Amino acid sequence: MGANASLQDCIQDCLRCYQACQSSAAGMCLEEGGAHVAPEHMRLMLSCAEVCRTAAAVMLNQSPQHPAVCRACAELCTACAGSCAAVGGMDECVQACRACAESCRQMAA
Amino acid sequence: MGANASLQDCIQDCLRCYQACQSSAAGMCLEEGGAHVAPEHMRLMLSCAEVCRTAAAVMLNQSPQHPAVCRACAELCTACAGSCAAVGGMDECVQACRACAESCRQMAA
Amino acid sequence: MGANASLQDCIQDCLRCYQACQSSAAGMCLEEGGAHVAPEHMRLMLSCAEVCRTAAAVMLNQSPQHPAVCRACAELCTACAGSCAAVGGMDECVQACRACAESCRQMAA
Amino acid sequence: MGANASLQDCIQDCLRCYQACQSSAAGMCLEEGGAHVAPEHMRLMLSCAEVCRTAAAVMLNQSPQHPAVCRACAELCTACAGSCAAVGGMDECVQACRACAESCRQMAA
Repeated sequence: MGANASLQDCIQDCLRCYQACQSSAAGMCLEEGGAHVAPEHMRLMLSCAEVCRTAAAVMLNQSPQHPAVCRACAELCTACAGSCAAVGGMDECVQACRACAESCRQMAA
Repeated sequence: MGANASLQDCIQDCLRCYQACQSSAAGMCLEEGGAHVAPEHMRLMLSCAEVCRTAAAVMLNQSPQHPAVCRACAELCTACAGSCAAVGGMDECVQACRACAESCRQMAA
Repeated sequence: MGANASLQDCIQDCLRCYQACQSSAAGMCLEEGGAHVAPEHMRLMLSCAEVCRTAAAVMLNQSPQHPAVCRACAELCTACAGSCAAVGGMDECVQACRACAESCRQMAA
Repeated sequence: MGANASLQDCIQDCLRCYQACQSSAAGMCLEEGGAHVAPEHMRLMLSCAEVCRTAAAVMLNQSPQHPAVCRACAELCTACAGSCAAVGGMDECVQACRACAESCRQMAA
């Protein structure tokens, strides 16, 4: 039950981070241009969104292998939070990435 | 160039394994029933397909973080190859999972 | 603003339906067996989940082409609601599919 | 058998178009900048990739509802081919989108 509660929380954190990264990359970043569309930054945003969505899927599938995917997700979210903080003006993504990274790190432990 | 060649190979191995697992899970496994639809087996098949597809996406995105995802992919493919071998009659999946696991392991190194 | 509000609502309906279908297919259906794992039913559940997730993605991307995807999504959700109602004991999926179908139909109009 | 052959062809056309659009959007477009990262163009590239991948998934799942998804895919591929042709220097994407649009149109008929 405790485990189920935290699994549910992690799924929600992953889907929230997916939405923040996907909508910011395709929305605000493309509109702002400049550092927001630097290749490294955009690739990380898009890849972070992709991996968050997949971590959620593997947990929704109740796969015992989800820790491996959560570990990868935590790594991308941490990198993405750093990139968003460096670019600036992306507080929603920074918060969502940090929350998801922390949640996935616990799930991977 | 060598690096690019092996990245391309790994993307193809991931997409081949994605197709083998997705089409076998939704095709042959559902038709055969029995051990083929055991929850643990089906969840692993579906999750392996999902992660293979995402590993390919992150490599297509040229993300420097792809090794983290390839590491997770290798772990799921290895588990899926074992499950498919135990169930039996799933040689195409076993081969595709083993090839993808080996390819992703090298990419993650 | 009204348009944005309904776009946001539709994204949430799609992600809710995605979660309901994916977790029920890989969870309850595989555990129950019988009619719950009939090939036609499971294929529709998995495909409905996939298309819901993609409709959400295309709306998060702010693509002007989202009505085409919402139209397909409404069609699969309607079929999936019918299949879930026929199988029985799947009220959460039936509700989520109907809400998503209605939401996507309006978005496609 | 003829039907199966063309379904297989359409899956391959979708996965080829997915790869062309995803790798060009995250690769060449971000490196070139200018018209290549215009919001409308990038959103269409990313959405086209997403829908192609999902059309392939629904066909791999053997879902009888695949024509609805192929119809949406043909629409996005046609729009994406037009956008890529207008931007210029994107012949691989133009070809892949046109081939996938034609293949999906036949599958949707």
